[in-house]
Amino acid sequence: MNGAESLVHTLLKGGVDTCFANPGTSEMHFVAALDRIPGMRCVLGLFEGVVTGAADGYARMAGKPAATLLHCGPGLANGLANLHNARRAGSPIVNIVGDQATYHRPLDAPLTADTEGWARPVSSFVRTATRAAEVGADAAAAIRAARTPPGQIATLILPADTAWNEGGVIGETLPPPPAPRVDQGVVTSIARTLRGNEPAILVLAGEALSAAGLALAHRIRAATGTRLIAQMSNARIAHGAGRVPIDRVPYPVESALAALGGLKHIVLVGAVKPVAFFAYPGKPGHLFPADATVHVLARPEQDLPEALARLAEELGAPEAPLPETKPRPAPAKGRPTSEAVAQSLSALLPDQAVIVDESVSFGRNLFSDTASAAPHDWLQISGGAIGHGMPLATGAAVGAPGRRVIGLEADGSAMYTIQALWTQARERLDVTTILLSNRKYAILLNELANVGANPGRTALDMLDLSNPDLDWPRIAGGLGVEAARAETMERFADLFSHSLSRSGPFLIELII
Amino acid sequence: MNGAESLVHTLLKGGVDTCFANPGTSEMHFVAALDRIPGMRCVLGLFEGVVTGAADGYARMAGKPAATLLHCGPGLANGLANLHNARRAGSPIVNIVGDQATYHRPLDAPLTADTEGWARPVSSFVRTATRAAEVGADAAAAIRAARTPPGQIATLILPADTAWNEGGVIGETLPPPPAPRVDQGVVTSIARTLRGNEPAILVLAGEALSAAGLALAHRIRAATGTRLIAQMSNARIAHGAGRVPIDRVPYPVESALAALGGLKHIVLVGAVKPVAFFAYPGKPGHLFPADATVHVLARPEQDLPEALARLAEELGAPEAPLPETKPRPAPAKGRPTSEAVAQSLSALLPDQAVIVDESVSFGRNLFSDTASAAPHDWLQISGGAIGHGMPLATGAAVGAPGRRVIGLEADGSAMYTIQALWTQARERLDVTTILLSNRKYAILLNELANVGANPGRTALDMLDLSNPDLDWPRIAGGLGVEAARAETMERFADLFSHSLSRSGPFLIELII
Repeated sequence: MNGAESLVHTLLKGGVDTCFANPGTSEMHFVAALDRIPGMRCVLGLFEGVVTGAADGYARMAGKPAATLLHCGPGLANGLANLHNARRAGSPIVNIVGDQATYHRPLDAPLTADTEGWARPVSSFVRTATRAAEVGADAAAAIRAARTPPGQIATLILPADTAWNEGGVIGETLPPPPAPRVDQGVVTSIARTLRGNEPAILVLAGEALSAAGLALAHRIRAATGTRLIAQMSNARIAHGAGRVPIDRVPYPVESALAALGGLKHIVLVGAVKPVAFFAYPGKPGHLFPADATVHVLARPEQDLPEALARLAEELGAPEAPLPETKPRPAPAKGRPTSEAVAQSLSALLPDQAVIVDESVSFGRNLFSDTASAAPHDWLQISGGAIGHGMPLATGAAVGAPGRRVIGLEADGSAMYTIQALWTQARERLDVTTILLSNRKYAILLNELANVGANPGRTALDMLDLSNPDLDWPRIAGGLGVEAARAETMERFADLFSHSLSRSGPFLIELII
Repeated sequence: MNGAESLVHTLLKGGVDTCFANPGTSEMHFVAALDRIPGMRCVLGLFEGVVTGAADGYARMAGKPAATLLHCGPGLANGLANLHNARRAGSPIVNIVGDQATYHRPLDAPLTADTEGWARPVSSFVRTATRAAEVGADAAAAIRAARTPPGQIATLILPADTAWNEGGVIGETLPPPPAPRVDQGVVTSIARTLRGNEPAILVLAGEALSAAGLALAHRIRAATGTRLIAQMSNARIAHGAGRVPIDRVPYPVESALAALGGLKHIVLVGAVKPVAFFAYPGKPGHLFPADATVHVLARPEQDLPEALARLAEELGAPEAPLPETKPRPAPAKGRPTSEAVAQSLSALLPDQAVIVDESVSFGRNLFSDTASAAPHDWLQISGGAIGHGMPLATGAAVGAPGRRVIGLEADGSAMYTIQALWTQARERLDVTTILLSNRKYAILLNELANVGANPGRTALDMLDLSNPDLDWPRIAGGLGVEAARAETMERFADLFSHSLSRSGPFLIELII
């Protein structure tokens, strides 16, 4: 058994049975090992950002890590932006990067780069294998690190000779450390605060936004009047009819300040402190009142539903009935607006759909406006690096077979990782991409106004995606994905329903 | 004057008048400043790998740095692979990365990342601006660093508040340090070696591969019998009729060992030691005999033509007539093969064309087989990170107006940075892309054989780009570039000639 074979065996033994890959020369022994050892599903991406974003989407839906397979430092570099997003989401990923042979690295051949240096900012675990005999143990340690709560990026760098040399040993699966328990004193203290009369809010993230977590938070709200909100960017929120409706901390600073104004207590439940996405001249960075106290019920790596359950118990909060879901509307007609898209999604969304939201400015209210849709999961880009949505949708579809994935994509961000469409076609994934085509970087036009700049010709040119117009049905078709254009909501409803009636991917360019 | 305005003024004063950009929120003041200050040509890329690769191509043709404009750590990350290539090419780039405001960084908003950490492995200069008043001086230092021989990546990170705050001061242009002079003792010693009877070779790179550099090397060869070769990957080689023909160190290890076998002296002229691109089991890493002596006539940062001129003088080497160029062939007919493509290029290449070669395996002999073509420059991907060619061609066309750029692209590598086509369309750049479509990662099939693996179904699937086939005319058309498919060399010749007869980009999918 060579090192590469011990790696594949160790991954499978540790429950990692899906590999998103864009291999190169230094990964050929790993690829060859996949031939000889059955059980690993390999999904090819034509760009590394697709690979890492898909691994993130897979983890969010499957609840366990996939492996990646990347080629040397520059191949890793191409995947970093979506690893950044995955790290912010707390997604577990076993990030495997093949590299120059140990003894070849000092020769500084052209593709040699600082692979470890690039991996470190996004990885909780970085190890470069040194001997074939230890690759199995290295992989087991990487899986353990990836599975360490809340989910981490574990980068294992595999010099080519550690893959091809004989003497591989399968690594024993290492159980991840348990989530650190929330101290009872914290629960008691926060319960005392919430029983008081001062305005308080629970800021939820991670598993606190699962159906079970939300139900617990809802009990606390019902018992104490504490408000609930989700943090701004979230890995996954249980949403739709029958779920506890929740808003998110808004992106625009003014809206966020209004939403959190007057609060005396901010209780973080796996969430980060509410801060502005960017600084703006003369606007605050913290989005909550300066005199509010920030409490931490649980850190991201703790068991959030357990913490909420104990808080509910401490408060003696009984089961609470959900507010009634609004009746489901009919599909919208006429001109495509944000409200119309939300209405049609609410009307037509299939049960247990997975929404992947990279709709940026146009889609800001789509989440709150789809609370009456059939129950679904809502996935957000989590680290603000655009080019996340289409890979995320691709991986989510692999990780949640049988569920329809709906991608809400802005045209500007879709262009970053357009190669994802090819993987969707190749794997015949059930993904409907709604390409919201406004032919500009609309968010940046807002931001230009936000920073007080008055755009002229040069600035407008830099934020404009027309000249030439992107022809999405042709691009998608060229990548193997059937596609069509809608300029009215009637046509949109027809195309959306058509996409649900068939298997495999479909793209709707919606002119907005 | 705010910091951003002082930056734009300093760039223009320092001769940096072209900016390849993919801006985001934190760059809005820079964008606004471009409106108010005339003189900067801004070229928008829809992905950062396009931006950095284009800056590389521009630098190679214009002989001076462009600026980039990237958005935060993840935006930089998306551009790293082509910065890696640019670094290996010795291309000067003023790499500007907008980032979180200085006082906002500690709040760790979602897009916050280790921008400096990611920049360092590719940059000779990394500085994060701290005050608006110093941005101009920081930019002047960055320009100087970029222009330091042989050409470097200088990364200037610009926190948003250093851009928007008032108090900007235009930076005084700083002259770059002169290239360190080659010691006369080195010249004398190498001249003595070359006068001896032991087999020797000059390995050329950088400016030694300009028409003037090659002519000097040719004199040395004529006087001493010393052989000439270019290093494996080169930023730019003067090539074609009337130029000194030269081979490159071959990529396959066996071919390289054969090319360099029997040598006693390896003389580096701005070149790196000939080493294998990758290690392979049982094959050597150094491509020259173990008993050969390696001499360094000049390091990459030294004046290579000057060093060659002094060596020629020391040897008393007179002007030497060039070997006769083979007559130009007629365009090829029939089935597209590598030989046929070289023949048609030799026949049809316009005068002073710029060839950008990312043809990978299929194109390995295109360079040596086009020595009889009209004089042209040949640009290679320099750091082995694929996804370089189309951005490089884009930037080369901006940097060399009036010259037709011919991109030789493999389908696998083209997919990495396909967004470049849109920029070519928007800027109406004279680029003819020859898309060599074999619908597989052909190089990896060779490499799989090289490492002794016998591919099965899984491995073959991972190296296969069909299922679905990429439809290049549709993809290119969707991105605004006119395109057509050729399955014969007759059709290829027609399309190629058509592309030359018009302005703007064109893509030929050549089925190979």
